[in-house]
Amino acid sequence: MAKITAVSPLAPEAFPKMPIIDGVSFSTVAAGVKYEGRADVMLAKMAPGTAVAGVFTQSATRSAPVLDCQRKLGGPTHDGAAILVNSGNSNAFTGRNGLDAVAQIVSASARACDLPEARVFTASTGVIGEPLPFERITDRLETLAATLDPAAMEAAASAIMTTDTFAKGATASVEVAGKIVSIAGIAKGSGMIAPDMATMLVYIFTDGKIDQANLQTLVAAHNENTFNCITVDSDTSTSDSLLVCATGASGVDVDDSQTFSDALHGVMQELAHLVVKDGEGATKFVEITVTGAASDRDAKTHALSVANSPLVKTAIAGEDPNWGRVVMAIGKSGAPADRDRLSINFGGIMVAKEGWVNPDYVEADAAAHMKGQNIRIHADIGLGSGEATVWTCDLTHGYIEINADYRS
Amino acid sequence: MAKITAVSPLAPEAFPKMPIIDGVSFSTVAAGVKYEGRADVMLAKMAPGTAVAGVFTQSATRSAPVLDCQRKLGGPTHDGAAILVNSGNSNAFTGRNGLDAVAQIVSASARACDLPEARVFTASTGVIGEPLPFERITDRLETLAATLDPAAMEAAASAIMTTDTFAKGATASVEVAGKIVSIAGIAKGSGMIAPDMATMLVYIFTDGKIDQANLQTLVAAHNENTFNCITVDSDTSTSDSLLVCATGASGVDVDDSQTFSDALHGVMQELAHLVVKDGEGATKFVEITVTGAASDRDAKTHALSVANSPLVKTAIAGEDPNWGRVVMAIGKSGAPADRDRLSINFGGIMVAKEGWVNPDYVEADAAAHMKGQNIRIHADIGLGSGEATVWTCDLTHGYIEINADYRS
Repeated sequence: MAKITAVSPLAPEAFPKMPIIDGVSFSTVAAGVKYEGRADVMLAKMAPGTAVAGVFTQSATRSAPVLDCQRKLGGPTHDGAAILVNSGNSNAFTGRNGLDAVAQIVSASARACDLPEARVFTASTGVIGEPLPFERITDRLETLAATLDPAAMEAAASAIMTTDTFAKGATASVEVAGKIVSIAGIAKGSGMIAPDMATMLVYIFTDGKIDQANLQTLVAAHNENTFNCITVDSDTSTSDSLLVCATGASGVDVDDSQTFSDALHGVMQELAHLVVKDGEGATKFVEITVTGAASDRDAKTHALSVANSPLVKTAIAGEDPNWGRVVMAIGKSGAPADRDRLSINFGGIMVAKEGWVNPDYVEADAAAHMKGQNIRIHADIGLGSGEATVWTCDLTHGYIEINADYRS
Repeated sequence: MAKITAVSPLAPEAFPKMPIIDGVSFSTVAAGVKYEGRADVMLAKMAPGTAVAGVFTQSATRSAPVLDCQRKLGGPTHDGAAILVNSGNSNAFTGRNGLDAVAQIVSASARACDLPEARVFTASTGVIGEPLPFERITDRLETLAATLDPAAMEAAASAIMTTDTFAKGATASVEVAGKIVSIAGIAKGSGMIAPDMATMLVYIFTDGKIDQANLQTLVAAHNENTFNCITVDSDTSTSDSLLVCATGASGVDVDDSQTFSDALHGVMQELAHLVVKDGEGATKFVEITVTGAASDRDAKTHALSVANSPLVKTAIAGEDPNWGRVVMAIGKSGAPADRDRLSINFGGIMVAKEGWVNPDYVEADAAAHMKGQNIRIHADIGLGSGEATVWTCDLTHGYIEINADYRS
């Protein structure tokens, strides 16, 4: 959770070419909250009529900005909205001062953007428990408001990075009712990433027109099998926030569009994968699929137990098709399993079935799969039809270096 | 889970001087199950009248010997008993062959020791999913039975080691009704160690006289706040077994003795601590106490969430009094907490209280505590009177080296 090191080997070749989302503009500034010599605050401003939906960390020690955002969900859409994010300091566990800092930032943002305070959503990410020097942010708000640019989304993605080694963006454009609707999102996150919560900071924008309550339902549902299905280290941030803003500027009603829903899901899944691909110390991207569980919930419990097991994650780092550790992780998960019905498959190669190693299994085949960057593990529990897929990365010396040597 | 490396820096100076437990004798042999050039099988034989109590892994994929032992608990005590343990191969996830191997070993042990099969308890520890070459063990049983020695307990402790870097023993002698009752136990374990289960392999012997059902109740109760309160890596073995054998040879009835109960608890706690002190890659022994939770159960949930957090464990490895990560771990645990009532203390130094850093806190003080080998973290939740203490170690490069580079 600290010094930015070499770019992850799993990073995409380049940041994607983002479309202009009509009704949204961005600006960034180097406010010196903590980092030197880089932009660390971003502002996004949305046009009147924009619907905003969100999901947040379930942590009992969630940060002051998260508490403020949660209160504001579902508010009136006619005036537009803004998102103000700083990196370098999470304003979490900062007591009453933390709430005051949020109030100051919200107030200054509302003034600069000519918006009601109820439509200003903020987030802070970085070190926990240090007072946020909010004046460094409020002092720059007039500048931020004066430099808004619809094409500045990549700069916004960079400004919210902490230990991230690359800026994360994803986009989709789909045809609905004969017109083009665009979706574009950015995310940050690489450690303190765990499931069963909205995870990290994610901001997605679309010019589709959708009722705010419908958008909230859609986002919550898609969140369950995208961001809530990734884990880097089983640790859950106190600041995780996901906001989706629909400006409606395309004039295309997407309330009932399966095409739009699928495209939004695709953008959310891609951003979730990018967060895993920037997992602290990651050298492998791992997809874990569990089928044949008694229920979908049980399947997810098994899959996350495998994904969070330090022994499984270190075996993957060592390129060892160590299916015994997968058996162990399924056994400890707490969800029902029967040793003699269990089968395990690495990269399409059946390694174990019905309680023992597959007699046709040749370890060299699975070992070859483990040498790749994309690892697939599939466990069939043999009890029912429940299934789930989750994504994680390996556990390497890089994770220890990043987290043992610097204050997060 | 593999190559034996340098002795843990947390190891005690020497194996303790163990008393003879009247009615128990031990033998070991180098059977070549997997390791070369070291004893890897141990036999313990107990006199007629010995009560045997046990607790085992709750894993859904538990090993064949565990399934066999669980069936045998509570059997008749008049004939005596035996324990046969091999290291190097866990006989877990080995299908029907695994059950056959257990049957062969039990049968040969019963014959060699002149005992009913129902009183032969076995365990296997080591690699998962490879067939156990049981003939290498059964071929040595006559030798083992012919070389039993009441003084060979340290050799027994060494024979059951896998990735352990030192043999683990603990003992207590107490006066009950004017006579001395002795307790002595051995344990193995250093990775794949997690709570909420009976953990690792542990064998404890006493010459106290106690009803077998009473002993079972006592062992299960003490297990909850000793072995079930330690964690190395949150991963749970498929083979964890704890057996306590009371020969009654002292003639001292300890059924209602609080002194005996306390002494047994002390031996169990010491063995549990020794397992943590041999945690894979460990350089720090960490005690985490949670008070003020809504219930004892909630306190343990919070404490284990802190103890299993990779970010907390890496911070400890880096000697960083990073209380923000403790806040994070309490927040994610799922048990109730209130940010503004939470206080955190490192080594007796109050670092945070009532939702923010303690104004009198000087980081250099906590940093000095973190440089020691014994780290104490205390969190008060401020909600009730629930409390719990758990023990863990730090997460270091050593853990990654041991687990990424070798097949467990």
